[in-house]
Amino acid sequence: MASKHILIVPGDGIGQEVTAVGKLVLDKIAAKFGHTFTYDEALIGHVAIEATGLPLPDETLEKMRKSDAVLFGAVGHPKYDNDPTAKVRPEQGLLKMRKELGLYANLRPIKLFDELLGASSIKPEILKGADILFFRELTGDIYFGEKGRKNDGDTAYDIAEYSRFEVERIARKAFEAARTRRKKLCSVDKANVIETSRLWREVIQKIAPEYPDVEVEHQFVDATAMLLIKDPRRFDVVVTANLFGDILTDEASQIAGSMGMLASASIGDGTGVYEPIHGSAHDITGKGVANPLASILSAALLLDISFGLKAESEAVINAVDKVLKAGFRTRDIADQQTAADKILGTAAMGEQVL
Amino acid sequence: MASKHILIVPGDGIGQEVTAVGKLVLDKIAAKFGHTFTYDEALIGHVAIEATGLPLPDETLEKMRKSDAVLFGAVGHPKYDNDPTAKVRPEQGLLKMRKELGLYANLRPIKLFDELLGASSIKPEILKGADILFFRELTGDIYFGEKGRKNDGDTAYDIAEYSRFEVERIARKAFEAARTRRKKLCSVDKANVIETSRLWREVIQKIAPEYPDVEVEHQFVDATAMLLIKDPRRFDVVVTANLFGDILTDEASQIAGSMGMLASASIGDGTGVYEPIHGSAHDITGKGVANPLASILSAALLLDISFGLKAESEAVINAVDKVLKAGFRTRDIADQQTAADKILGTAAMGEQVL
Ligand SMILES: CC(C)[C@H](C(=O)O)[C@@H](O)C(=O)O
Ligand SMILES: CC(C)[C@H](C(=O)O)[C@@H](O)C(=O)O
Repeated sequence: MASKHILIVPGDGIGQEVTAVGKLVLDKIAAKFGHTFTYDEALIGHVAIEATGLPLPDETLEKMRKSDAVLFGAVGHPKYDNDPTAKVRPEQGLLKMRKELGLYANLRPIKLFDELLGASSIKPEILKGADILFFRELTGDIYFGEKGRKNDGDTAYDIAEYSRFEVERIARKAFEAARTRRKKLCSVDKANVIETSRLWREVIQKIAPEYPDVEVEHQFVDATAMLLIKDPRRFDVVVTANLFGDILTDEASQIAGSMGMLASASIGDGTGVYEPIHGSAHDITGKGVANPLASILSAALLLDISFGLKAESEAVINAVDKVLKAGFRTRDIADQQTAADKILGTAAMGEQVL
Repeated sequence: MASKHILIVPGDGIGQEVTAVGKLVLDKIAAKFGHTFTYDEALIGHVAIEATGLPLPDETLEKMRKSDAVLFGAVGHPKYDNDPTAKVRPEQGLLKMRKELGLYANLRPIKLFDELLGASSIKPEILKGADILFFRELTGDIYFGEKGRKNDGDTAYDIAEYSRFEVERIARKAFEAARTRRKKLCSVDKANVIETSRLWREVIQKIAPEYPDVEVEHQFVDATAMLLIKDPRRFDVVVTANLFGDILTDEASQIAGSMGMLASASIGDGTGVYEPIHGSAHDITGKGVANPLASILSAALLLDISFGLKAESEAVINAVDKVLKAGFRTRDIADQQTAADKILGTAAMGEQVL
């Protein structure tokens, strides 16, 4: 029986609503399987700025370091988006957390629950069976390089940077995952134009012989953006840089029917962080309609990856599957066939899964 | 009656095959409408490297400068893609051409011919009526900033850069185009993380009041990658930076059924260049199966934008429409309903349009 300490970091917007449901699911698992989970809570993002002036207070970081895993919500607020000159921003908290905790690998599994085949804008016959695992590098690239202004503020610049070491450690994680799946790895870059991409491709080519059982292909990011929609089933494991991963995984959310279904795990040197790939979604905040399934599935990833509790993780995924099979939907995954009384809000959907 | 000089630059791979067809269409238009088009041809890309050692020989650049418009094919060769250390690459020719000719605005119209509704992997009811005009900035960003290696080659870097001037001139073109369409402009950036994007957003916000009839929205690039598939009809004109435009327009090709249907115009300070958005596609080169419609539609854009010949341009588009209505398809846009004898190769498809 495991005894674990979990930090809940809801963050901004619908992060609050969905993480609350994710936590209930963890509670239920603890009770059912006889584990002891203790919890604490901490601030990040806009709510942290409001309370402390900082997007990632030291106290939050301390608590993260001391926890066995973090269940995370979302950060962001429209106020900052419309003010490009803001000096303190919620996203800085997220980026600092990733850097400070050494969360260099962001795993984003894209898998369509069969019941949601109709919810996607992509044709069911193109989607059926699609199952992709993204490895997005999370602590390098243009996100963390020097940036600033020159010429009296009239010119802006951002530096993208990667070292061999940074590429190699995420690449190895992706190769190893491919081994346990369909043994295909697609590395995505823009090596025909960008130097960091050339280094990226060099490193992949160099270590590939150590994984002779894995079939490797290289694709340009523009072609990949196209192929993900045209033929999603051709992909198994995809590994890519931070910025390309940001764009491609949001795009790939359409393969799973909705962003509201997708969970992610950020892992690396220490505590792992588990979060939905959707954002703070202030347009629907407080309305009780947000889809909690991404947070629930993040909890499932947490149980599996940070605690090694496979059966518990599968129990969560099966519960979600059952609820979908029973026809229950949140608004974002409902389609014309969904009866009005099967369209649930955040809490009611959580209830069903519990 | 116009008298114009057109430079044909087929480049690599299927560029040769499709551009030959595009030229035939220009010939036919000249004959039918009583114009005099004279032609010359020049090398770029891999074929230029083989012949001269340079991806863009001075002679080609000279000829481009002296022409009234350029009909362009594609550049690229797998040989270089798999050698990240190659010093001379076909793509350098393309990038140098864009820079030297000041082609800062790349227009990519994404419009679905109704007959191809079935050819896309996206559901017809999501696609029907989608009509997007992309303005991709083409001479700045991470494509043209300093790049290189440090730490004995163990670290690679690329600098992304934009000046106010560069953002403003492409933004104004996009605002003006929006005025002639549905009066909506979506500016795409990653202003929550990247400094060049913050400058980008600042400039758009600053000039927006000069176009009070145009409704402006700002979207992050990751959200846009998702929304393009989820709800393509929400977009009218989209303006974005070079790298984001590269990725998003390839993705958006799926809205039009196939990359083989999409034309682009690169315009700026001097001669305009017209080319398919597809690449050199060496996997199908020489097989005579490449779709020539993107090159034909590039010729239509050339007639319209560089020569102001609207009726001639429309005649080309109508011919393409008629051929599609008659059920003819190249392989890439055929679907299960297409009869085998209606699936044509490059030359036969060209014949039908002529
Ligand atoms: C909020 C933003 C900074 C973040 C990112 O770009 O990494 C988000 O889009 C994500 O994917 O987690
Ligand atoms: C070939 C490559 C350098 C080019 C680009 O990235 O601009 C191509 O993808 C394009 O979109 O024209």
